[in-house]
Amino acid sequence: MSDAPKEQTLPERPAGEGAAEGEKGPSKNALKKAAKEKEKAEKAAKRKAEEAAQKQAAEANDISKDSYGDLPLIGSKEYTPPNDNRTTLRDIAAKYAGSTSLATEGSSPEVRFRAVVENAREQSAKLTFLVLGHKLDTIQAVVAASDTLSRQMVKFAKNITSQSQVLVHGRVTQPKDEVKSTTIGTLEIQVTKLFVIARAETPLPIQVEDCERPLPEDGTSDAQAQKPEEEAGRPIVALNTRLNNRTIDLRAKLNLSIFTIKDGVVALFSEFLRERGFLGIQTPKMLGAASESGASVFEIKYFNTKAYLAQSPQLHKQMLIAAQFERVFEVGPVFRAENSNTARHLTEFTGLDLEMAFEEHYHEVVALLEELMLYIFNGLRTRYARETELVRRTYRVEEFKLPEAGKVPRIPFSEGVKMLREAGVEIGDYDDISTAQEKHLGRLVLQKYGTDFYVLDKYPLAVRPFYTMPSPETSANPPAEQLSNSYDFHMRGQEILSGAQRVHDAKLLQERMRGMDPPVNPDQPGLKEYVDSFKAGCPPHAGAGLGLERIVMLWLGLPNIRLATAFTRDPSRLSP
Amino acid sequence: MSDAPKEQTLPERPAGEGAAEGEKGPSKNALKKAAKEKEKAEKAAKRKAEEAAQKQAAEANDISKDSYGDLPLIGSKEYTPPNDNRTTLRDIAAKYAGSTSLATEGSSPEVRFRAVVENAREQSAKLTFLVLGHKLDTIQAVVAASDTLSRQMVKFAKNITSQSQVLVHGRVTQPKDEVKSTTIGTLEIQVTKLFVIARAETPLPIQVEDCERPLPEDGTSDAQAQKPEEEAGRPIVALNTRLNNRTIDLRAKLNLSIFTIKDGVVALFSEFLRERGFLGIQTPKMLGAASESGASVFEIKYFNTKAYLAQSPQLHKQMLIAAQFERVFEVGPVFRAENSNTARHLTEFTGLDLEMAFEEHYHEVVALLEELMLYIFNGLRTRYARETELVRRTYRVEEFKLPEAGKVPRIPFSEGVKMLREAGVEIGDYDDISTAQEKHLGRLVLQKYGTDFYVLDKYPLAVRPFYTMPSPETSANPPAEQLSNSYDFHMRGQEILSGAQRVHDAKLLQERMRGMDPPVNPDQPGLKEYVDSFKAGCPPHAGAGLGLERIVMLWLGLPNIRLATAFTRDPSRLSP
Repeated sequence: MSDAPKEQTLPERPAGEGAAEGEKGPSKNALKKAAKEKEKAEKAAKRKAEEAAQKQAAEANDISKDSYGDLPLIGSKEYTPPNDNRTTLRDIAAKYAGSTSLATEGSSPEVRFRAVVENAREQSAKLTFLVLGHKLDTIQAVVAASDTLSRQMVKFAKNITSQSQVLVHGRVTQPKDEVKSTTIGTLEIQVTKLFVIARAETPLPIQVEDCERPLPEDGTSDAQAQKPEEEAGRPIVALNTRLNNRTIDLRAKLNLSIFTIKDGVVALFSEFLRERGFLGIQTPKMLGAASESGASVFEIKYFNTKAYLAQSPQLHKQMLIAAQFERVFEVGPVFRAENSNTARHLTEFTGLDLEMAFEEHYHEVVALLEELMLYIFNGLRTRYARETELVRRTYRVEEFKLPEAGKVPRIPFSEGVKMLREAGVEIGDYDDISTAQEKHLGRLVLQKYGTDFYVLDKYPLAVRPFYTMPSPETSANPPAEQLSNSYDFHMRGQEILSGAQRVHDAKLLQERMRGMDPPVNPDQPGLKEYVDSFKAGCPPHAGAGLGLERIVMLWLGLPNIRLATAFTRDPSRLSP
Repeated sequence: MSDAPKEQTLPERPAGEGAAEGEKGPSKNALKKAAKEKEKAEKAAKRKAEEAAQKQAAEANDISKDSYGDLPLIGSKEYTPPNDNRTTLRDIAAKYAGSTSLATEGSSPEVRFRAVVENAREQSAKLTFLVLGHKLDTIQAVVAASDTLSRQMVKFAKNITSQSQVLVHGRVTQPKDEVKSTTIGTLEIQVTKLFVIARAETPLPIQVEDCERPLPEDGTSDAQAQKPEEEAGRPIVALNTRLNNRTIDLRAKLNLSIFTIKDGVVALFSEFLRERGFLGIQTPKMLGAASESGASVFEIKYFNTKAYLAQSPQLHKQMLIAAQFERVFEVGPVFRAENSNTARHLTEFTGLDLEMAFEEHYHEVVALLEELMLYIFNGLRTRYARETELVRRTYRVEEFKLPEAGKVPRIPFSEGVKMLREAGVEIGDYDDISTAQEKHLGRLVLQKYGTDFYVLDKYPLAVRPFYTMPSPETSANPPAEQLSNSYDFHMRGQEILSGAQRVHDAKLLQERMRGMDPPVNPDQPGLKEYVDSFKAGCPPHAGAGLGLERIVMLWLGLPNIRLATAFTRDPSRLSP
C-alpha cells in the first residue's frame, strides 16, 4: 500500500517547544535513539527475510501443501472445485454409527463434508483434535502428522478459529473409547485434507457454547445474569446480550432445536387442517381503520392517509366464511401495540388462526380443535423427540403431560371458578380470570386430571369481544350474567388458544356492538363491510386464534417467550 | 315496540301556516279524506284478520308444517337439532354419480346436507326447482307437491332468497335428462324437508352469477366495464365494484378456484422444501431502520420512535444462514410503498422466500429452484386440474406450457439480450431489461423452446442489489461491465422469482455497499447487525424471493393481480 498509515510516521516536532529549549540540532540522545531504531529495523527486516525463506523451504518440503489452506471466496473467485460427492455429519452417523464393518482392519470409508469448527485443541506438534459440527451433530476429527500429513498442516488446523466453516476430507474410523463430548461419539474422522471456506473473526462478542446453557431465572432482568451459575462457574449470557448478538446466539444447538420444533408446530397445524378441507389464506395486515376493539394498534403512514397494522385476522377470516369458503386457516404475523414488558408479551408474533362453518353446535369445532392440538403434541413427540429432549434437559423442565386416552378435560368456566374458590381463591361467577388465577387453575387441573392441557368452556359474555355468540341457556339472564359460546385452551396453566362461536347474523351483530361498553358503531369504516358480509346469508361458524410462540414456549417449558422468537420485537427492541 | 317510528305519526300542522289561511276547523275535504282513510284502515284490518285465519287454517291443514321453515339462530337459541348424519354435495357426487344402483326402482338413498340456494324457480304452484351449491358443486333439487308434501312448502321454497343457507333433507335420484346447468348433472335431489339456516337479504349489491364472468379487458379501468360484453348482453361487473363487494364476489366458483390454487402453491412450496431439509421461519415485519435499498417502505409509529414495514425478509433470512440454519424458507406478507397503479403491483402481497447454503456453485441452488417450480406446476396440474380448467375457460387462456422432459431453459442474460436484438429490440449489454422487453423475450423463448417457463441467468452486476455476488469470470472488467451470480425466473414473459448468490464475506459486502451509487453505509442501524453476522463465518449461500400472487396470476393467465388477492391493498385501496 502506498499510503503508509499515519501512526507509523515520525511525528513532526512542534516548532514552538524546540525553540523554547534553545536547541539547534538533534541532541546526543536523539542521535543514539535513531541509531538504535535503525539497528532494530535492520534486524526486523532480516528476521522477516529469514522467515520468508524458511516458509518457502517449509512449503517446498510440505508434503501436505495441497491438502490444506484457505479456499478462494467460493462463487466469486475462479476456482475449480474437487470432483467429489459431499455428505453430511447426519448421513455419516446414519450410515456408520453402530456399523460392524468399520471394525475390520483397513475399512475406513472416505468422506467429504462441510462443517463448522466448534473447537480446535492442540495435543502436540504432531496432533490436533477438532470438534466439527453441523446442525445438531458433532464429531471428533483428528489431524495427526504422518508420512502423508505434515506438521505444518497440524499447525494450520489448530489455528483455525472457532466457528469457521471448513471443508473436510477424511476417513471414518471408530475411536478406541467413545468420545463423550460429541453427539456422534462412536465415530471419529481421520482428516486427510482440510480447507477453510469462511474464517470466523476472533474473539466473537459472545461464545456459542455459553449460549447452550439456560438463561438465569426468567431472563427478564440483566441483573440476574450476574448471579453465579450452578454450572462450574462458567460464564452465563444475559438475555439482552444474547438478543443483541442473536445470529451468534442462534448457532447454539439449543436454539436450532427450539426453531426446528417451532416449524414443526406450523407444519403439523397446516397438514392437519389441509387434510380436513381447510384452505390456507392470506388476509391483509394493513387495515384502513382501527376497527377491531381490544388491544391497541400500530399506525402506519400510508401515502396521504393513515393505515393500521392488523392485531389479528379476525374480521377478514370471518368475511371469508361469509364468502362461503367454509373452512380457512392462516399462519401470519400479528401486531400488538401494547406497552407490556413481560416474559410472555411481544409486539409482533405469529398467529395461527382458523375459522370454520359448523352444522349444529359449536362443540363440533371445539372437538376439532382438541384433535388438532393432540395431533400437534403427538407429532412433536414422535418427530421432534431429540430436539424436545435437548431443550427440556437444558432448562430442567418436566415432560408435558397429555390427557390419558386422548380425552381432553373440557371444563365449564363455572366449574373452573368453583375449583379456584374451593382452593381459597376469591373470584366472582362472571369475573374474568387473571393470569395468576389461570396458572393456579392449571395446577389444580393437573392434580385432578393429570394433564397439562385442557379447555375452559363458556366464558361470561361480558369478558368476550362483540363478535362472540351469546349462549342460549342464559339468554333470559340480565346481560352481566350471561354466558357465551366461547373457549380458551390452556397449556401448563397459560392460555394458548382463544376462540368462540361468532355471531353470523347481521342484526344480532349490530345489537351486540351497540350494547358493548363503550358501544361500538357498526357503521364505522372497517366494521361496516364486515357487518354487511353477514347480510348475504352466512353459515353458523366458530374458530380460534393460537399463539405460535406461546405453544413452543409452554411445550418446552421455556422461561421467556423471546426464546421462541428468532428476532424479538417488544416495546424496547426493534433490532436486529 | 312502544316508541312508534316518527315517520308514521301525523305531522303537526305548522301554527303559522294555518293561521295565515284563517281556518278554524277541518275543511270538508279533510273530513272526507279522514273518513276514507278510516274505511281503508278497517278494510286492511279485516284483510289481515282473514289472512291470519287463512294462514292458521292452512297451517292446520299443512301436512308439511314440520318439514320446512326458518330455523332458530343456531347456537344462540334453544334448538334440538335432528339426530342426523350430514353429508355434502361433494360426497353425494362421489358416492352416487355414475352409480347403477340408483336406477333400480325404489332405491333412492336419503341424504341431509347444508347448501346455498343459488336459484329458486317456480314451475307451477305444485313444483319448485332449486339450484343448490356448496363450494364448487351444484345440484338440482325438486320440491314437488304430493300426498306427503304441501303446496305451502312448495311456495316457501320458491320464496327462499338467492344465497340463503339451507338445510336440505331429500332422496338422491337420477333425472330423466342430464341437468345441464349444474355440476352434478346426473343426480337430482327430491326434497323432503327444507329449512332456512340464514336468509340472505335481497337484492344484494352485486349478483354472484355475474361475478362468474371475466373482467372486461385487464380490469384496471371502470370505464371499460361499460363496454358491451360478448355474452348475451348480461351485466358485467367492473373490478372496483367487485372489490368493494368482495365477500359477495368471492362466492363465485371462479374465485374459490383461484384461492384454492393459491393455497395449493403454498402447500406445494412448503412440502417440497421441508422434504429437502428446509426450516420454515418467521422474520420480523417491523424493522428499526429502513435498511434494505430499493423500494420505498411504509413508516410505523412505534411507541415513541419510528419503525418500518419490511419490504422483504432478505436481510433476516440471510442472517439465519449466518446462524447456521443451513436452509430456510418463509411464507409471509411483504410491503411496498410504491405508488404504482398497474395491473401487476400491490402494496401488500405474499412473499415466498428461501435461502440455502451451497457447496461449490450457486447453480446448485438454481437447479433446486427449477425443480421446485416444476414440482409446483406438476402438483397444480394433477391436484387442481378442475380449478385450473374452470378459471382458464372463463378467461379463455391457453394452457401453461412446461418445458419438455423437465429441462428448463437456463438462458444467460447476454443470450437473452442477443435474442431481443435479433428481433429488432435496442438494448445494451449491461442495461436492465424492461417489463415490455421481458414480455417480448417471453414470446421469443416460447417460439424457440416451446415453454412458458424459463430462467435468465447472470444479470449485469450494476442492476442488482448490494448483497449480490459478483461473477468470477468478469472480475477483471470495469464495474459497469461486470456480471453477477444472479437469476430471475419467468412465467409467460413476466418475472415471478428473483434471486442470487449473496456475498457471504463481511469485507466484500462492505466494499460492495460503499461502491453502490449512491453509496450504502454498512455501519448504519439495521445494516450493521447484518454485516456483523457474516464476520463469524458464514457458508456460501444463495436464495430467491417469489411473488405468490404473480405465480397464481400467470399460471392461470389472469388479467390483473388483484384477482389473486383476497383483499386488495394498493395505493388507493385499504378496504374491505
